[in-house]
Amino acid sequence: MFTATIDAKAFRNVLESVGVLVEECRVHIDSDGMRFRAADPALVALVDLTLDAEHFEHYEARETVLGVNIERLTEILSVAESGDSIQMELDISSHKLTVEVGTLSYTLGLLDPDSIRDEPDLPDLEPPATVTLKGYHIDRGVKAAEMVSNHLRLAVDEDEETFAIEAEGDTDDVAVELGREEVTSLAPGSADSLYSLEYLTAINRVIPNDEPVTLELGEEFLAGLEFEVPEAKQSVSYRIAPRMQYA
Amino acid sequence: MFTATIDAKAFRNVLESVGVLVEECRVHIDSDGMRFRAADPALVALVDLTLDAEHFEHYEARETVLGVNIERLTEILSVAESGDSIQMELDISSHKLTVEVGTLSYTLGLLDPDSIRDEPDLPDLEPPATVTLKGYHIDRGVKAAEMVSNHLRLAVDEDEETFAIEAEGDTDDVAVELGREEVTSLAPGSADSLYSLEYLTAINRVIPNDEPVTLELGEEFLAGLEFEVPEAKQSVSYRIAPRMQYA
Amino acid sequence: MFTATIDAKAFRNVLESVGVLVEECRVHIDSDGMRFRAADPALVALVDLTLDAEHFEHYEARETVLGVNIERLTEILSVAESGDSIQMELDISSHKLTVEVGTLSYTLGLLDPDSIRDEPDLPDLEPPATVTLKGYHIDRGVKAAEMVSNHLRLAVDEDEETFAIEAEGDTDDVAVELGREEVTSLAPGSADSLYSLEYLTAINRVIPNDEPVTLELGEEFLAGLEFEVPEAKQSVSYRIAPRMQYA
Repeated sequence: MFTATIDAKAFRNVLESVGVLVEECRVHIDSDGMRFRAADPALVALVDLTLDAEHFEHYEARETVLGVNIERLTEILSVAESGDSIQMELDISSHKLTVEVGTLSYTLGLLDPDSIRDEPDLPDLEPPATVTLKGYHIDRGVKAAEMVSNHLRLAVDEDEETFAIEAEGDTDDVAVELGREEVTSLAPGSADSLYSLEYLTAINRVIPNDEPVTLELGEEFLAGLEFEVPEAKQSVSYRIAPRMQYA
Repeated sequence: MFTATIDAKAFRNVLESVGVLVEECRVHIDSDGMRFRAADPALVALVDLTLDAEHFEHYEARETVLGVNIERLTEILSVAESGDSIQMELDISSHKLTVEVGTLSYTLGLLDPDSIRDEPDLPDLEPPATVTLKGYHIDRGVKAAEMVSNHLRLAVDEDEETFAIEAEGDTDDVAVELGREEVTSLAPGSADSLYSLEYLTAINRVIPNDEPVTLELGEEFLAGLEFEVPEAKQSVSYRIAPRMQYA
Repeated sequence: MFTATIDAKAFRNVLESVGVLVEECRVHIDSDGMRFRAADPALVALVDLTLDAEHFEHYEARETVLGVNIERLTEILSVAESGDSIQMELDISSHKLTVEVGTLSYTLGLLDPDSIRDEPDLPDLEPPATVTLKGYHIDRGVKAAEMVSNHLRLAVDEDEETFAIEAEGDTDDVAVELGREEVTSLAPGSADSLYSLEYLTAINRVIPNDEPVTLELGEEFLAGLEFEVPEAKQSVSYRIAPRMQYA
């Protein structure tokens, strides 16, 4: 059993945060809320987001796992107007989720959760360095890096107390360097890792420009990236595996 | 002889209403006005629009039929600015239409009307059901239907007094259902027909969101769809043939 | 030695004025300023723009020639926000130009100037006719001409004192004709030449709509086209070779 009502815009933002990495997702549902957790097909990046029951206008659920086409569900929500709510109701017998937005009723066929890649368990990592900064710094760094390379370096200089996004191309190099006064907070430590731009470009699409984003960094480190999903009062967190570095 | 002056924006909207179904059109001209009537190449949909002489700033015409490239004439009007008028003058000897918009003078080669498909005569049909509703309901229904299928159903429930736009896909279904209080007016009757989305998607591009649209519906019925062309003070009406329904 | 600081928006507009014709450019630098001068690969059109030292916030240079990828440098400036300055510094030993915009630092590899086409010397031509008009007239004429042809005619009628942009297609013709009262100024003379639209379409992308543009015209004449680059307080001038005319 699962019936829930929530602001359509907030729910759409939640889905988009997940959808930048995966098209389909196993959604864990219980009385506490909905948990979206999925890894991209290459297992390089992972997204994790829990939407607590208290953020719904109405929420009633028994424990279950749904296989959801995130892309399709996001598309349905595109018809919603500002202020609209979305109502969801699970029909277990037919394996369908009925979604209502205003006068529109959509019956979404669910996927067999077993057909969707299992999300990996994550070790609890103690990040050597943490930096919190406005999203637009990441946007600028990612876009500049795209001009010259297909990967970028995230590094913290412990002595200088600076954070840098860098990329090296064949002829051109690019760097966004931020001091203490340009970030919201910085817990310096030894951090220097290379990441594939593919995943950062995808995640950057949903990073809010003017809101704080927290990065957990280290040496050849499984980076963490976390921010509050706009309108959803709930954070999404990503993990991105580092690329091998060549001397 | 044909010379006419009309608001460029209004005339452009008229041309676009016709252009969503056909690229070329036979335009019947007489002292009463200009009549655009054309069927799409597959003869599934028909458009009919008369622009009365009184809606022109200046209008003088003797009876004739012009073969007009609607797409091209619409493109010319794209240079017009708000408040511009368009002046047209027929040069019979050269088979050209001179079009002036502000400082721009365009000489449009006319087509041989005989080379353009003859528009079919229409039986006068008594529609079993009629519903008038704001254009955005159709927009929402058409866009939702496009997510799951390439045709949609328009139906009226005589007992419930509801109007529905529905589409069925392989795994997903979609429906927009409107009661009496959500439409402008409803004359209920037996109506349930399937239409190809191709034509409804095309027509939907020119349906004004906040203005009333009247649908004439029935069982496997040649549907009617009519609304006032924005700024033109004149209605355009479409007919769309139903698709065969399989049990 | 070369270090310079200038408003990022103004410099971007300068680069775009050059970039509509060429991707790479030899930039002549001396204590007076930066000179951009380049011909398109087919040697049909030429751009010439000098950015005087006085328009920089800071400017220090010894004479040199840089081979610059204009397209790339323009792209870097796309990260600039309103009010940002760009700082440039030449590193002669590494043949690189360091470009800083806000927190972004970009190291641009320079090209060997000898690898870039030498810009042709220009004869000093006395134009038979000159017309100055708002940019949007050219925009309208170029866009209308694109509908029917791939070249257009620029002509002045000495007796009527009119300026015309005309194009002839297989079935359709187009003309924008302007009298004395519709242009800013007109020095009439014998002028009638055909130009390839390819170059005029490219240049038209950077012509400001509401600012005056000066055309120097004649019979089968190497046309001149000049206007002030927005925000840069400096003019750019183009030369476009005429096409052969067939009787």
